[in-house]
Amino acid sequence: MLNETHDPALRSWVTAANDVAGDFSIQNLPFAVFRRAGSDDAFRCGVAIGDQVLDLGAVADSGVLQGLAGEAVAAGREDKLNTLMALGAEAWSALRLSLSRGLREGATQQPRLQACLVPRADVEHQLPARIGDYTDFYTSVFHATNIGRLFRPDNPLLPNYKWVPIGYHGRSSSIGISGESFHRPMGQAMLPGAQAPTVVASKRLDIELELGIFMGPGNVRGTSIPISDAENHVFGICLLNDWSARDLQAWEYQPLGPFLAKNFATTISPWVVTLEALEPYRVEFQRPESDPQPLAYLDSKKNRAGGAFDIQLRVELETPGMRSAFLSPAHICRTSYRHAYWTVAQMVTHHTVNGCNLQPGDLFGSGTPSGPGAGEAGALIELTDGGKNPIALPGGESRAWLEDGDRVTLRGWCERPGAARIGFGECVGTVLPAPAP
Amino acid sequence: MLNETHDPALRSWVTAANDVAGDFSIQNLPFAVFRRAGSDDAFRCGVAIGDQVLDLGAVADSGVLQGLAGEAVAAGREDKLNTLMALGAEAWSALRLSLSRGLREGATQQPRLQACLVPRADVEHQLPARIGDYTDFYTSVFHATNIGRLFRPDNPLLPNYKWVPIGYHGRSSSIGISGESFHRPMGQAMLPGAQAPTVVASKRLDIELELGIFMGPGNVRGTSIPISDAENHVFGICLLNDWSARDLQAWEYQPLGPFLAKNFATTISPWVVTLEALEPYRVEFQRPESDPQPLAYLDSKKNRAGGAFDIQLRVELETPGMRSAFLSPAHICRTSYRHAYWTVAQMVTHHTVNGCNLQPGDLFGSGTPSGPGAGEAGALIELTDGGKNPIALPGGESRAWLEDGDRVTLRGWCERPGAARIGFGECVGTVLPAPAP
Repeated sequence: MLNETHDPALRSWVTAANDVAGDFSIQNLPFAVFRRAGSDDAFRCGVAIGDQVLDLGAVADSGVLQGLAGEAVAAGREDKLNTLMALGAEAWSALRLSLSRGLREGATQQPRLQACLVPRADVEHQLPARIGDYTDFYTSVFHATNIGRLFRPDNPLLPNYKWVPIGYHGRSSSIGISGESFHRPMGQAMLPGAQAPTVVASKRLDIELELGIFMGPGNVRGTSIPISDAENHVFGICLLNDWSARDLQAWEYQPLGPFLAKNFATTISPWVVTLEALEPYRVEFQRPESDPQPLAYLDSKKNRAGGAFDIQLRVELETPGMRSAFLSPAHICRTSYRHAYWTVAQMVTHHTVNGCNLQPGDLFGSGTPSGPGAGEAGALIELTDGGKNPIALPGGESRAWLEDGDRVTLRGWCERPGAARIGFGECVGTVLPAPAP
Repeated sequence: MLNETHDPALRSWVTAANDVAGDFSIQNLPFAVFRRAGSDDAFRCGVAIGDQVLDLGAVADSGVLQGLAGEAVAAGREDKLNTLMALGAEAWSALRLSLSRGLREGATQQPRLQACLVPRADVEHQLPARIGDYTDFYTSVFHATNIGRLFRPDNPLLPNYKWVPIGYHGRSSSIGISGESFHRPMGQAMLPGAQAPTVVASKRLDIELELGIFMGPGNVRGTSIPISDAENHVFGICLLNDWSARDLQAWEYQPLGPFLAKNFATTISPWVVTLEALEPYRVEFQRPESDPQPLAYLDSKKNRAGGAFDIQLRVELETPGMRSAFLSPAHICRTSYRHAYWTVAQMVTHHTVNGCNLQPGDLFGSGTPSGPGAGEAGALIELTDGGKNPIALPGGESRAWLEDGDRVTLRGWCERPGAARIGFGECVGTVLPAPAP
């Protein structure tokens, strides 16, 4: 399904987009919502290109795009991507093709599009969509086994795991945008050896590296989305940090799942990379032959051949001490989304098999895509074996769990020989102390 | 906290409101969103009085209300109650007092308000609010024990239950309004004796009688709502049916809680009864002395003295066979919300103890308020002991679980000597067959 927008030889007249180590090549063209930082301007939709943001509202006003692309870019005047998300894959693809052509070296549209650029360094973001419902999945068998071993030593991986793309509903109100800070949560915990729970500032504050998956067109309640059509309902992918308080989680999560341990804050990156941009990075969906194979409604040739995405992911941790000493952030995790046990298409189809209705702008969390190896786990609870083996950091510090002032940055990108590099930018969040009583 | 609006001697010039067996007395004045049935009119907010709906948009246009009540009624022009919900308890109370005075026998405002009435029989409803997040609690210790016994025979009530007001996030997109029909859900189930799950139309479709609790003003993320202030964040209460597919639930729910077993449909009643209207029905919050007492953040004198509400609840079931034979619906459950193990105020405070932000229009489910006695359970799984003892129905039929065409009606009301009866109306939903493949 590669088309001319994927050609690695394409170069943009926005010269920074031609940096082979950059995130925002002309083969990427991710969407966000932005305005000039510190201004009172209305937020509007934009596309990243090199070190610039192309203001889609301004492009719409310029009249430079026609036809279906022109209809799609008009949705860019809004302060959320929901309308564009609702238009569907044909409209997204038409807009992407027109923007790709207009941003190429030698494009006749250069003067008119150049007038629509804002330096990326000068913008601020808000959430890219009104997120009606947020669903968090659990699609890495390595993560599920690692976590399960700590919460249920005698029963780490439950019998349904290899049959059901396990998910649960999360909190949409507390999802924030990269760059934010949040307070360490208070809550009930049962301390070791105690007879009764006490209210504490969480002592086991953790990250969960995840991808955020934004829905495009929804489905009517009572209908389901077959796996053959599932990806047409997916707009794109961002980075997501599912901050987690493990001490609150251990005490509260049975029998109905995590609640206050997760819903105090979730942080996502501003840029949403479309599935079309990710096309060169599809890989085979791998499932050990000895494992149960997906039930028919979750299976298709297309899903097996290329339902997974090889997205490189990294977690960086920086403490206040490291900042004062001008030390670089520590890379505490490197993994790839290719390790997922269930694909994006399988999540969409499973979510709707019972008739549950999805809406444009709904968000899925992928679950933490921990890999099989050491250093491939996307949460401290896994990396430190439940806090028992703290991570050594540059400058002599160590961390079992997050401390106040710690800053976590998630990064994601795709690269391989013969294709252009595309990146997700970063997802940054900083821990503030628990609120004063 | 009783005021003149609660005086049981009050009578309305809307004479049907003076029916001592009716739901919508002048002491009630619940809110909904409505329009003339089958019209293309814009939905707007209304207040029930006897057999009429007072059109708040028309009242606002009439100029009959002044001051804070006038500001509040202006929010009634909108097609959702969110703006009114955000205004807070003082505004709701001022509006309620003005409407009570204007609707009383002898009120000088009668001619102008009379022009704002629409017969209740002529209206249709939509959801009363844009529900950002929906949280389902689990606040009956009897229900939790009954359900726990069936899902975990050796471990029915988990150790956290008596300390933590257990809740989890539900699906907001699939919440519908009374009168709706929905398809029996499909999904994975592990059938008895099977080695692998299969996709089935749920064979164990159930109800859960609950109350729906709408939030008023929210809180900023990172702050919490103390129990002394919690009820100021609650707009009012409706009826809620948390339809549940028990076979899907048993297979999917571990370790992260119910998901597809619940999110195919939730039905709420249109009328939201304010906490102020419920004031005469406060009762002592009861907790056996041998049980753990609430932790300090969940405890207050006010909560102990009157944090619970004595709301009478009833579930009616009508099969297609009963309809054809003109038989009355069977009353399969009678209970009271007074049995709740955790109060509304405790739910609000617990939900925010970690800094999670609530927003106007957010909805809580109370959990099924099963009582201690036979026939006081609000779900078939409890009433039939997991399907083993079907309920006998008039006309010779019986039901272990819901069958296609079955219609369930929830009703709620408050009455006691010395206070006027107030009611919630009804919450009706009908089961359609599973969708054709």
